[in-house]
Amino acid sequence: MTTFNSRHQQLQRRIDAAQGRIPCDLVLKNVRYLDVFSCVFREGDLSIIDGTIVGLEAGLKGVRELDLKGRHVVPGFIDAHVHVESSLMVPSHFESAVLRCGTTSAICDPHELANVQGASGIQYFLDAAERLTMDLHVMLSSCVPATHMETNGGGSITSEALVALSKHPRALGLAEMMNMPGVLHKDEDILAKLEAFGDRVIDGHCPLLKGQALSAYAAAGVSSCHESSELEEAREKLTKGISVWIREGSVAKDLDTLIPLLDLATSTTLGFCTDDRNPYDIAQEGHIDHLIRRAIRSGVAPEVAYRAASWSVARHYGLNRGSGLSRARVGAIAPGYGADLVVLDEVARTNIHAVLKAGRWSHELDRATLAVAGFTNSIRAASVEAHDLEGPTGQVHVIGAIEGKIITDRAVRGHQDVGVSRLSVLERYGRGSKPANGYVSGFGTLRGAIASSVGHDSHNLIVVGGNTEDMRVALAALTQSGGGFCVVGAGEVLELLPLPLGGLMSHQEPGELKQRIDLLKQASRSIGCELHEPFLQLAFLSLPVIPSLKLTDQGLVDVDQFKIIDVRAS
Amino acid sequence: MTTFNSRHQQLQRRIDAAQGRIPCDLVLKNVRYLDVFSCVFREGDLSIIDGTIVGLEAGLKGVRELDLKGRHVVPGFIDAHVHVESSLMVPSHFESAVLRCGTTSAICDPHELANVQGASGIQYFLDAAERLTMDLHVMLSSCVPATHMETNGGGSITSEALVALSKHPRALGLAEMMNMPGVLHKDEDILAKLEAFGDRVIDGHCPLLKGQALSAYAAAGVSSCHESSELEEAREKLTKGISVWIREGSVAKDLDTLIPLLDLATSTTLGFCTDDRNPYDIAQEGHIDHLIRRAIRSGVAPEVAYRAASWSVARHYGLNRGSGLSRARVGAIAPGYGADLVVLDEVARTNIHAVLKAGRWSHELDRATLAVAGFTNSIRAASVEAHDLEGPTGQVHVIGAIEGKIITDRAVRGHQDVGVSRLSVLERYGRGSKPANGYVSGFGTLRGAIASSVGHDSHNLIVVGGNTEDMRVALAALTQSGGGFCVVGAGEVLELLPLPLGGLMSHQEPGELKQRIDLLKQASRSIGCELHEPFLQLAFLSLPVIPSLKLTDQGLVDVDQFKIIDVRAS
Repeated sequence: MTTFNSRHQQLQRRIDAAQGRIPCDLVLKNVRYLDVFSCVFREGDLSIIDGTIVGLEAGLKGVRELDLKGRHVVPGFIDAHVHVESSLMVPSHFESAVLRCGTTSAICDPHELANVQGASGIQYFLDAAERLTMDLHVMLSSCVPATHMETNGGGSITSEALVALSKHPRALGLAEMMNMPGVLHKDEDILAKLEAFGDRVIDGHCPLLKGQALSAYAAAGVSSCHESSELEEAREKLTKGISVWIREGSVAKDLDTLIPLLDLATSTTLGFCTDDRNPYDIAQEGHIDHLIRRAIRSGVAPEVAYRAASWSVARHYGLNRGSGLSRARVGAIAPGYGADLVVLDEVARTNIHAVLKAGRWSHELDRATLAVAGFTNSIRAASVEAHDLEGPTGQVHVIGAIEGKIITDRAVRGHQDVGVSRLSVLERYGRGSKPANGYVSGFGTLRGAIASSVGHDSHNLIVVGGNTEDMRVALAALTQSGGGFCVVGAGEVLELLPLPLGGLMSHQEPGELKQRIDLLKQASRSIGCELHEPFLQLAFLSLPVIPSLKLTDQGLVDVDQFKIIDVRAS
Repeated sequence: MTTFNSRHQQLQRRIDAAQGRIPCDLVLKNVRYLDVFSCVFREGDLSIIDGTIVGLEAGLKGVRELDLKGRHVVPGFIDAHVHVESSLMVPSHFESAVLRCGTTSAICDPHELANVQGASGIQYFLDAAERLTMDLHVMLSSCVPATHMETNGGGSITSEALVALSKHPRALGLAEMMNMPGVLHKDEDILAKLEAFGDRVIDGHCPLLKGQALSAYAAAGVSSCHESSELEEAREKLTKGISVWIREGSVAKDLDTLIPLLDLATSTTLGFCTDDRNPYDIAQEGHIDHLIRRAIRSGVAPEVAYRAASWSVARHYGLNRGSGLSRARVGAIAPGYGADLVVLDEVARTNIHAVLKAGRWSHELDRATLAVAGFTNSIRAASVEAHDLEGPTGQVHVIGAIEGKIITDRAVRGHQDVGVSRLSVLERYGRGSKPANGYVSGFGTLRGAIASSVGHDSHNLIVVGGNTEDMRVALAALTQSGGGFCVVGAGEVLELLPLPLGGLMSHQEPGELKQRIDLLKQASRSIGCELHEPFLQLAFLSLPVIPSLKLTDQGLVDVDQFKIIDVRAS
C-alpha cells in the first residue's frame, strides 16, 4: 500500500501520473466503464495512482497492468441506508462481507447500538469508520429513544449531543427522522434537531405518509426516505423532493413494488439500500448487487441501475465532492475520483469478477488492522417465571405479522384461536420490570419459543411462543449468553447464537454466522414456525414507529393512534 | 414582506402552513409545475409561506391567491458562471436586469474587479451579495493576476487571502482555474490553492484541453468548465467528471455547437451560463432564458432544458441543500425549497409571465435598498504620443479576431496589408509604462480608433485603430473619464461611455446602458468596424489564457507556448 505523505504530494503525483511522467500503480486495460454523467458505457483503460483514478484512455503505464478483456466496470455501490447492527457483524466483518458484493460505501445509522449504549454507541461507529477500508458514513441517530412508549439503555440523545458528534469527519448528517408525529406536531426537541442540522443532510422515515402531512415533513428539511412500500407513495415522495431509497432488506422487500419508478429520468434521484439485512441473505443473495440484479431482471437498463446505485446516492450525500485527505470523491469513474470499482463478468447479471476499493483489491485487504474495541454487553433483565408471561385472555388485539413486511396487520381474535401465538417483551436495562404480554399471528402454530435480544429500537428481549414455559427458558438462555438469538422446544435450548456486543452483534466471521443462522432457521421450522425470517420479523414487532400494532416493554402500541392500548379488546 | 424572527419560528410556520393550520402568504392556483426529480410537468397549486414552498396540491388557502390558469411554472434559472462586471452594471442593476429574465441565482466570479482592486474587489461582491434579493454566490478568483505576462492593479491574491475570504457565507468555492499550465506543471501557488479548496467546489477553465492533460486537470480536483467550444471537447469533459456549462455570452457563443450533448441523460450534469454578457444583449435577447429558448428551438425537450437550467447547476454547487437562515434551498419546486419560480406564458418559447424570487414578485421589489458603495476609479496610465503607438514594421505576427469567438487565429502578414489594424495595450496602474504595440485583423479597415478600459483580465487600456493619432485621442479620453468605452474618428471623440467603477462598471440603469452601447456600436460601424461586438472582442484580445495569440501591456503573448514573443516574424 502506498503511503500518502501529504495532500500536496498526492496532488503532485496525480498530476504527474495522469500525464505519464511517472507510472501508475495499476492500469486496468480494455474495460467498458460506466460514464455516469452521460449514463453510457465507454471503452478505455482505467489508470490508478494512490487509490485515485487518473486516466480513462489507453496510453498510461502501470506498475501492475491487468487486461480485463472487455469486461464492464462500474462505480462501487453505495448502500444509501443501513443499520450495520442488523448484519449481526462488527463493522470490520460487515466490511468483509459487503465489499466482495461491490458495496464500497455505506451510509449507516447506528440507531440500534445508540439505543442500547447512548451516544457512545454512535461514537463506536465513528471510530470504526476511521479504521475501515470501505467508506462508512455515519448519520447521527435522531430518535433515541424512538418513542416514549418503550424503555432503552441509551437514554435520550439530545440535540446538543448530536451536534457534538457532528464535528467528526465521518459524521454526515441527521439519521432517519422516525418521529413523524413529532415533526408534524412541532415537538420542541425534534425542531431543535432539525434546526441544528439545517445545513447538513437529514434522512427521513415516513412510511405511508402523503398529502399535506408529507409536504409538512418535507418542508421541515427532510430529503430522503427508505420506507416507501407503495408505488404511488414513492412517486409522491420523489415529487416532493424526497429521494427514494429502494429497500430490499431481509424482511422489508420493496423492490418489486417500487422498481417501475426507476428510469433514466429518475436515475439521479433514486437509490438502493438494504436497511436491515442479515448475514444469511448477504452471504446467500448478496448486498446492493442483489438489488441491482433484481432491478435489471425487472427490465431496468443496466446503466440506469448502476447509476442509481452509485452516482445518485453519492450526489445526494455530497460524496462526489470528497473532503481533503479524509475522504476521496466517490460515485463515478473519472479522473480525481477514488478507484472504487466493481469489475463484472456479466453486466446484466451483476456477476462480480473483482472489487477495488480506493485502488486496492478487496480480496487482498489486510483484515488484521480492522478490529475496533466493542462493548461487552450485560443483559440485566429481571428474572421471570412462566406465569409472568401470561397475557390477558378472551377477545384480544392480535398483531398480524406479514411474511416479508415490517408493517403489521391488526385483528381482534380469541387469545386461543388457531395461529395466535404468545408474544412478550422484557425490559433488559436493569429497571427490574415485569414483561409486557400480548399476542401475534403469522408465525404458525408454535411448539416452543423463539427469543431475541434484537428488538427494534430499544432492543429489549422479545419472545414469541406457544407456551409460557418454553418462553421462560428462552429468556433465561438469552440473559445468560449476554444476548443473542435462541430457539427452545420442549424445555430445551435447541439453538443459540450469542450476540455479546450490545446484545446486537457477534465477533464471528460472516461465514460462521451464516451457518449459525441456518441452524436457527431450521430449529425454528422444527417447532412449527412458518415465517422465512423469524428473527428479523420478531425484531420489528417491538418497533412502534412502523404501523400498525406493536408490543414494547411498556405494552401494546397502537401506532396509528401513537399510544399504548389495552391488549383486551373492549 | 414577512419578517423572519428566527429559524425556529420559520420552521414552525412552514409545518403549520403545509397542513393548513395557518394561511399561506401566496397560493398560485392551477399551474403546471416542473418536477425536476422525474423531469415531467405536473398539475397542482403552489403554496408559499415566508418565501418557501410548502405545498404542491390544491387545498391550502393563501392571503393572496392567484389563478394561473394552467400556466407552466419552472424553477428560477441559475447562471452557472458569470462575471457581473461584464454586464457593465453594479450588482443591484445587474439583479434588476436579470431577475426579470428569470435568473434568480448566479454563480459569479469577481475576477475583473479583483484584478483591478485586489481582494477588496472580491469583498465588494460578497458584501453586495448579502444585500441582493437574488442569490449571488461568489467563487473566489483563483488567478489574479491571470498570468505573469501582464500588469494588473490588484497585485497577486494569495491562497491565504482566498482562504480568509472563503469564510464568508456567500463564498462558494474557488473560481475558474485559468492557469491550466500552472496546474499541469504543478506550480506551487496553484497547488496551494487547489489544496486549500479541496473540500469546496473548484471551477475550471480549460479551452480545448483534452487527453492526458485534461485528465490531469480533472484529477487535480476541477469539476466544471464553461470554455468548451467544440462538441467532442465538451463530451470528453463530461466523461471526465467536468460539468459542462454551455455558454452564450455576448462574444463567446457555444450553444449551437454544444446543444446536441443535452438530453435526458445529461440534464443533471450540463448547465447554462452567460460568462460575459453585455447590457445590450441582456435587454435585447435576455439572459439564461435566452439560452433555454435557443436550446428548445434546437430540439431539446422543454423539461430537459429547464431542468439543466436549475436543478443540474443547483446540485453541482450544493444550492439544493441550503444553509440555515442564510440560504434557502433552491433548484427545484418542492416543499422546503425557496419559492424561486418562473411563470411562463408559453413553455416552449420561454415567454416569461412573471418571476418570483423567495416568494416575492420581481416587479414588486424595492430597488432603493440595493445600493452598495463602490470604488471610485482613477486611471493612472502614462500620457502617450502618437509615435509611442507605432509597432514594428514589415512581416509581423497578426492576431486574428474571429466574429463571435474569444479564441483567436494567428498569421504572419505585412503590417500594412489590407485588413490589418494597429493594436496597443497601455498599462494603467501608475507604473508609467509605454504601450505595447502589435497588430490585429478582423475589425475591417478602420478609419479611426476604438478604445476600452475593459481588457481581460488585467484591464489595462486597449485600443485598436487605423492610425496612431486617433488611437492617442481615444486613450486620452478614457484616461480623463476614469475609464470606459470610446470611439474616435478624425481626431474627435464620437462616442464615450464612462465606466467609473474600477473602469469596469457604470451606475447607470440597464435601459440607459443599452442605449449608450447602441450608440457606441453605431459609431464603430461609422469608422469601418465590421465586428458585431467590437468592445467585447477587444476586451478579450488582451486575455493571455485563451488561445492563441494575444497582446498585453507587456507584449505579444503566444498562448500556445505561454510566453511573450517578438511581434516581428523571424
